Amino acid sequence: MSSSIPSDDARPFHVWQRILDWAQEHYRCRTFSKDERIPTRPGLLYLVQQGAVRLVGSAQVSATLKQQKSSSSRMPLVAAEEAFLGFVGAGQPFEIVAQPPFTLQSFSHVDHTTIVWLYWNDLDTWPHFRREVLDAFRRQHQRKLLWLSTLGQRRTIDRLLGFLTLLVDEYGEPCENGYYLPFPLTHAQIGSAIGSTRVTVTRLMGKLRQRGLIQSHGENLISIPFGASLKQQG
Amino acid sequence: MSSSIPSDDARPFHVWQRILDWAQEHYRCRTFSKDERIPTRPGLLYLVQQGAVRLVGSAQVSATLKQQKSSSSRMPLVAAEEAFLGFVGAGQPFEIVAQPPFTLQSFSHVDHTTIVWLYWNDLDTWPHFRREVLDAFRRQHQRKLLWLSTLGQRRTIDRLLGFLTLLVDEYGEPCENGYYLPFPLTHAQIGSAIGSTRVTVTRLMGKLRQRGLIQSHGENLISIPFGASLKQQG
Repeated sequence: MSSSIPSDDARPFHVWQRILDWAQEHYRCRTFSKDERIPTRPGLLYLVQQGAVRLVGSAQVSATLKQQKSSSSRMPLVAAEEAFLGFVGAGQPFEIVAQPPFTLQSFSHVDHTTIVWLYWNDLDTWPHFRREVLDAFRRQHQRKLLWLSTLGQRRTIDRLLGFLTLLVDEYGEPCENGYYLPFPLTHAQIGSAIGSTRVTVTRLMGKLRQRGLIQSHGENLISIPFGASLKQQG
Repeated sequence: MSSSIPSDDARPFHVWQRILDWAQEHYRCRTFSKDERIPTRPGLLYLVQQGAVRLVGSAQVSATLKQQKSSSSRMPLVAAEEAFLGFVGAGQPFEIVAQPPFTLQSFSHVDHTTIVWLYWNDLDTWPHFRREVLDAFRRQHQRKLLWLSTLGQRRTIDRLLGFLTLLVDEYGEPCENGYYLPFPLTHAQIGSAIGSTRVTVTRLMGKLRQRGLIQSHGENLISIPFGASLKQQG
């Protein structure tokens, strides 16, 4: 329930610090402003030193056929549609692997997001750390299976609530009467994650608020009150 | 493009064989018939020796409020909705981690599916194999990010085509004019993965067939013809 390194994930401070020092020395470290695109290459490993990264996928795939004027062949219409795929918080690794026609991109989600990058081979020096990185991917994979579970739900409002619940469960920080998501997310970003639109998300968020299943925290953050918390149902 | 162990994944035959022998000796190995539920426990690691496993998630989450007769408190209605989360093919690992209100389950998807299970500690004997298992989870995680990209698409027919494309891309086997998915999937199962219903999937599969974007292979398998293959667009 915290955006910092979770306790079961705590790595020896000196190893983490040595990797950061090494990255500084080797110019493998850069700080980004909010919403800046993080340039990535396949095969490299990225670590979030501070801040948060937003992963975005785009599927250049469409079932709509474009009639070719000059020929009788029918080609699928290529229209990119971007989807929010989640956050990578401080202390977590990520990598960007493209598989046409799908592309992944990473953006700095908040100001002062610092990224360190290395080749997998660089980790030969720190085999124990390599295993921690792989374990982190294993846990990220488990979370994504839960995301897929909620995205399989038929009603958009259920997908929306499940999605917000998983985010708050993973990144939430405690507030007066529940947990809040410490990063802002636009309704368009939420819609892009759950197969819906900005307009629909705005309408359904209103419904969830009316029903007391979500609340506002400050100006533009979302919180889930204790009573409605899905953790309580388990 | 094969359901057997991919080449970049090929592990020294003798290690794999030694693990299978060890599992036999220790009664850590069992064969299941089609659609049988595979009993699992958190913390254990499962390997698919042969056949294929179907992962199913269920989100006991709903935004609909059930009015309590005896009290004025409003509780979210708990209604389980199962979602198909993908296959685990021969040579691949899986694990089942529950996070209330989400639960994961595994089923034998085809007859004669053989599963081996171990504790993570058992892998201390085979550290190189442990790293291969972790690398396999890392690749599974990358695939799931692509799934999430397509499930973020707004139109159900686009999600359907993206979903089928990813499955065929990962598990497909070559046929006369494209690649086919060697496992049957019901329209209800497909619907449960893409947030839709059996009825809608049946209708949209008809459309995709008409447009030549998918084809039937044999009685109940799906193929994607070369011309429509998304790989060609990349």
